[in-house]
Amino acid sequence: MPTTALTDRLTAQFAFLLECDRLKDVFRQSLNTQSRRRENDAEHSWAICLFAVTLAEHSNVPIDVLRVVRMLLIHDVVEIDAGDTFAYDTAAMRDQHEREARAADRIFGLLPADQALAFRAMWDEFEARETAEAKFAHTVDRLQAMLLNCATQGESWRRHGVTHAAVVARNTPIADGSSTLWTYIRGIVDAAVRDGHLAT
Amino acid sequence: MPTTALTDRLTAQFAFLLECDRLKDVFRQSLNTQSRRRENDAEHSWAICLFAVTLAEHSNVPIDVLRVVRMLLIHDVVEIDAGDTFAYDTAAMRDQHEREARAADRIFGLLPADQALAFRAMWDEFEARETAEAKFAHTVDRLQAMLLNCATQGESWRRHGVTHAAVVARNTPIADGSSTLWTYIRGIVDAAVRDGHLAT
Repeated sequence: MPTTALTDRLTAQFAFLLECDRLKDVFRQSLNTQSRRRENDAEHSWAICLFAVTLAEHSNVPIDVLRVVRMLLIHDVVEIDAGDTFAYDTAAMRDQHEREARAADRIFGLLPADQALAFRAMWDEFEARETAEAKFAHTVDRLQAMLLNCATQGESWRRHGVTHAAVVARNTPIADGSSTLWTYIRGIVDAAVRDGHLAT
Repeated sequence: MPTTALTDRLTAQFAFLLECDRLKDVFRQSLNTQSRRRENDAEHSWAICLFAVTLAEHSNVPIDVLRVVRMLLIHDVVEIDAGDTFAYDTAAMRDQHEREARAADRIFGLLPADQALAFRAMWDEFEARETAEAKFAHTVDRLQAMLLNCATQGESWRRHGVTHAAVVARNTPIADGSSTLWTYIRGIVDAAVRDGHLAT
């Protein structure tokens, strides 16, 4: 590659990577287990990638783990512009995809053209939730939030008045990626109900 | 797999994943670009995985990107026990590997036996820095810290009295994974010197 073209490419890639640093300041409703402060999107993205490589064996069908991880690493960067939409806020969820698609245009558009297309395609694949990899990516995304809620005595659920029925309804798609993980996490959630950490 | 064995396996995997949540409370010397608070290891681990998938094309030799990402996701979890060792603290670095190896025994030991071995092998591979994937993993690990320092006007370098010569000496192994990225980041660091953000 001619030197100028290479420099331009690197400059675009670094601009994208620096922009993504903002994800560390987008906060979710989930609480971290130790500090009990709200989790940010960067921490969450790392956690679910670790969930994916650790739990991939439980996928309903064989999956390309790198493809799952690629999606998970970038699935939330749109929230730099669009903000985090709480999973149980049905009003905010109405225009969520439109807000996030505009953010995807801007943020992935910082990359060199070929990578902008490739990263956008990964994000679209995640959003569409049709491929086995996208389904498993959603599985770990939801699973990790449920597990954090259980491990913090349901404090975030309680703050927002979330009930057991809402948790089950919201998270049933976990089974599309892994019926094993859905069965297992339901057991943990049932225990949270018995312990008084989640309202019925 | 019999149900009891599967439940035991899941219980071990979830214990490991929950333990790793502590990584969000291990803080590094690098400052995030927006809040200017110190970066934690979980955020850092996400960032360098994103660096790896975005910049893999610049590796000196073709690499297995999933292998790189697997190493990066877990390379810092030993710091849950051992703490972060500042890259320019040569005294603390002396017994760093021993402290971290003990942590690796404990933390990866939470996993089912086969995965404990596999994760430990990945961590050992990262530490040994011999394979092409381990070299590239170290490349993005150091590159991201340098870039954050440059993007925050060298505040962390200044706090610790780090000089240009120390930065170059410490980070030369970036070239083992990618001479292209080493050349590029040196240009950015040279600009930081010219701008008065890094002492000579």
